[in-house]
Amino acid sequence: MDIDSYLPRIHELLVQEVLSGWEPVDRVMLQPLQMPGKLIRPRLVLLSSGLFGEISERAIDVAIAIECIHTASLVHDDIVDGASLRRGVPTINHLFDSHTAVLAGDHLFATAFEILARCQLTEVLSEVTRAIKQMCAGEIAQDLNLFNTGLSEKDYMRNIFGKTASLFGAACRCGALVAGAQPQDVRQIGLFGEHLGYAFQIADDVMDFCGEPGTLGKPCGGDLRNGIITLPVIRALAVSEHRRELLLIIESNQLQADTINRVIEILKDCGAIEYAAACAINYCLGAIRLLEPFPQSPARNELVRLCSTLITLPGLEGKSSREVWNMLVEV
Amino acid sequence: MDIDSYLPRIHELLVQEVLSGWEPVDRVMLQPLQMPGKLIRPRLVLLSSGLFGEISERAIDVAIAIECIHTASLVHDDIVDGASLRRGVPTINHLFDSHTAVLAGDHLFATAFEILARCQLTEVLSEVTRAIKQMCAGEIAQDLNLFNTGLSEKDYMRNIFGKTASLFGAACRCGALVAGAQPQDVRQIGLFGEHLGYAFQIADDVMDFCGEPGTLGKPCGGDLRNGIITLPVIRALAVSEHRRELLLIIESNQLQADTINRVIEILKDCGAIEYAAACAINYCLGAIRLLEPFPQSPARNELVRLCSTLITLPGLEGKSSREVWNMLVEV
Repeated sequence: MDIDSYLPRIHELLVQEVLSGWEPVDRVMLQPLQMPGKLIRPRLVLLSSGLFGEISERAIDVAIAIECIHTASLVHDDIVDGASLRRGVPTINHLFDSHTAVLAGDHLFATAFEILARCQLTEVLSEVTRAIKQMCAGEIAQDLNLFNTGLSEKDYMRNIFGKTASLFGAACRCGALVAGAQPQDVRQIGLFGEHLGYAFQIADDVMDFCGEPGTLGKPCGGDLRNGIITLPVIRALAVSEHRRELLLIIESNQLQADTINRVIEILKDCGAIEYAAACAINYCLGAIRLLEPFPQSPARNELVRLCSTLITLPGLEGKSSREVWNMLVEV
Repeated sequence: MDIDSYLPRIHELLVQEVLSGWEPVDRVMLQPLQMPGKLIRPRLVLLSSGLFGEISERAIDVAIAIECIHTASLVHDDIVDGASLRRGVPTINHLFDSHTAVLAGDHLFATAFEILARCQLTEVLSEVTRAIKQMCAGEIAQDLNLFNTGLSEKDYMRNIFGKTASLFGAACRCGALVAGAQPQDVRQIGLFGEHLGYAFQIADDVMDFCGEPGTLGKPCGGDLRNGIITLPVIRALAVSEHRRELLLIIESNQLQADTINRVIEILKDCGAIEYAAACAINYCLGAIRLLEPFPQSPARNELVRLCSTLITLPGLEGKSSREVWNMLVEV
């Protein structure tokens, strides 16, 4: 199953859906679509559909709608992050203003629902609306807990379920629904998507402390600088002997490059990075295990491959990253 | 038809739809729902439905969804206006922050679509998504034309169609669709809604220059201060002998209270206020005329009454406002 061959078309159709023919408005709307993203969510829709049959035109429509929703959420995210670039292209808030960016995001959400309305699948629509509500709720909860050093692992997991895992899960369930899968299969592939979403977000949060600034495209420790408390920090606050120092650093809310380096040192010393990376890998392995009940097929193979290529993590203590990937893909 | 008796229930059900049981998130989401608004759009849904039969539970659901969309757009509007109060209650951007307000608006949009998905009416869904896209496009176009003194009357009408008239029209069409109205009746009541929307927005734009600050709840000339060029200004730029002075004032982008007073003087002197007010009244009369083909009924009477109570305007030259209202309600 050559999923990659579908992706240029998905992007092209998305652009067509967004264009209205009202020139000044289209100029704004095309801005976030100049460079396609990784198209993870459309891949999940198409592959989850492919598990149960041919990839239909309807599956392609749903894939476009879900990428449209993801794009809307990125446009809105960039507003308060004050991001001036996304995928190397100026953001709407940078090129125009934040009000225009709010409206452009809303326009993208509406476009997604316009596509879904055309598909006439109530269940798909319910899945997507639920996922967006969870996405917003997760991000609101995260916002309300900025610099909250009392955030528990459970709170964190609930937030990232909303932020990331819910739309991954919905993408998979929608793909399966479009292909007419049985309810228990829809549930199972949804769980797969959610596990992959958890793994993806936790790994992303780990890499925020470990990635090279060049690769990340942003300075290290950006989440913590913005007050977002992620799993490595929660773990270090629970187990590090430098707990009080870490608390003071975070609560001072003045994280310069040198304090960030000290935080990273503390996280590494107490094994918090390793702990969070292992957690991401566990979710990724869990995702792959959830695919086992489905018969061997090109779509299933592609989903396994997607898991192994999506999760980037620093090499675990005593294991080369190659060994980690081998662990993953050998399942 | 006692439409007012439905309104408390609409508001109450909207609150229930928005609540998720996730306490910190609910605290944010309830903020814009503390005080019900005028509920114009739900009234339009219910009355347009009532023209063609009983008001069903489905019509109530659609009315809730459309108010939810309107609330979402207000939450997003308040962000860049930097409004700290709406309906006398602190806004989300004031009480929390603008990112939370962006997310809360998105959450409200998703809630609206969740309700519409449950209704299982594809046509209603298409109407609503189209209206939201037009709403966003209208506001984006307005944003791109701030302080643009070259804005034509045609551009202005196109922008306010998107901003206001499209959702008014969609509300009416959805109400009729839910009641199983014939396609030509759906079109006709949609035109009624759009005409009323134009009238409402033009009158609002006129009152921005004429209302008492106490009644407006904001200082006079706020639109122009924010760079929004409305019909009275477009007219004055076309006909006033003080055209060049007005141009200089607007392009200086420094509108203090005394310059706003001078602008109002110029607008009044050249009849621009009167011209725009007459335009609003014409649209309002046009709306009422569009109701004529429908048989006499309590719902039709209520729609006429809604037209006459919704449009607030200063007394036209030589006519008392009472005479204007009489003109309207006598049709």
